[in-house]
Amino acid sequence: MKYSLEPIGVVRSPLKIREDAPRQGDEGAPTATIEVAEPFRHALHGIQAGDELVVLTWLHEADRGVLQVHPRDDESRPLTGVFATRSSDRPNPVGLHRVIVVAISATGLEVEPLEAIDGTPVVDLKPVLHGVDGR
Amino acid sequence: MKYSLEPIGVVRSPLKIREDAPRQGDEGAPTATIEVAEPFRHALHGIQAGDELVVLTWLHEADRGVLQVHPRDDESRPLTGVFATRSSDRPNPVGLHRVIVVAISATGLEVEPLEAIDGTPVVDLKPVLHGVDGR
Repeated sequence: MKYSLEPIGVVRSPLKIREDAPRQGDEGAPTATIEVAEPFRHALHGIQAGDELVVLTWLHEADRGVLQVHPRDDESRPLTGVFATRSSDRPNPVGLHRVIVVAISATGLEVEPLEAIDGTPVVDLKPVLHGVDGR
Repeated sequence: MKYSLEPIGVVRSPLKIREDAPRQGDEGAPTATIEVAEPFRHALHGIQAGDELVVLTWLHEADRGVLQVHPRDDESRPLTGVFATRSSDRPNPVGLHRVIVVAISATGLEVEPLEAIDGTPVVDLKPVLHGVDGR
């Protein structure tokens, strides 16, 4: 049984290659634009500047066959299952990115900080719930 | 362009139907088991009881055509874009569930609280990063 993910938009970012991207948003990631495809723009209604969102991406350059990694590519650290790490190489490479909405346009959102590279497909946006996500 | 999600496991829970499930884990959700399929069990290495994880599920009963909802099905609240809500009805119904690992077995994990119903496919597990997920 497999399921099909359809991107609802794409990341536009000054980060062009994976080697340039910080590992997490709070490690110096830039402001980026999420261009939302026209059919999905009605689903943005109610989002405001200043809102905190979780952006779900599809990390399209990931290696889906990897099950264990050295955390942060540090070979002095023992091999660890990818489900115990935030490695982008994993069976279903869905990225989670917590951002703040900087501005809203007719075609999408400007958000920060976002460590995903230019061209990364976006599959969902969710509001942060402090009771659930931030406890 | 579409992408294929392959479940890495399944939720086993006393919650059998969607109407029984609380809307969020912190609203009285039970302890549940995540059965991980054999090919993916090496990816669990390093997870310990007491760890905080984000469980990503595929909300297989969701209506993917819904773009706006009344939050919490309360018709006194204005129609809101699903990207501004945690509605399970949305274009790509990936669920995010923050849990604590209660126990580890040969075939998976016992976690709590988890509001996903029995049979919900699990697509990823990630450790909570307090700098990124919990600020």
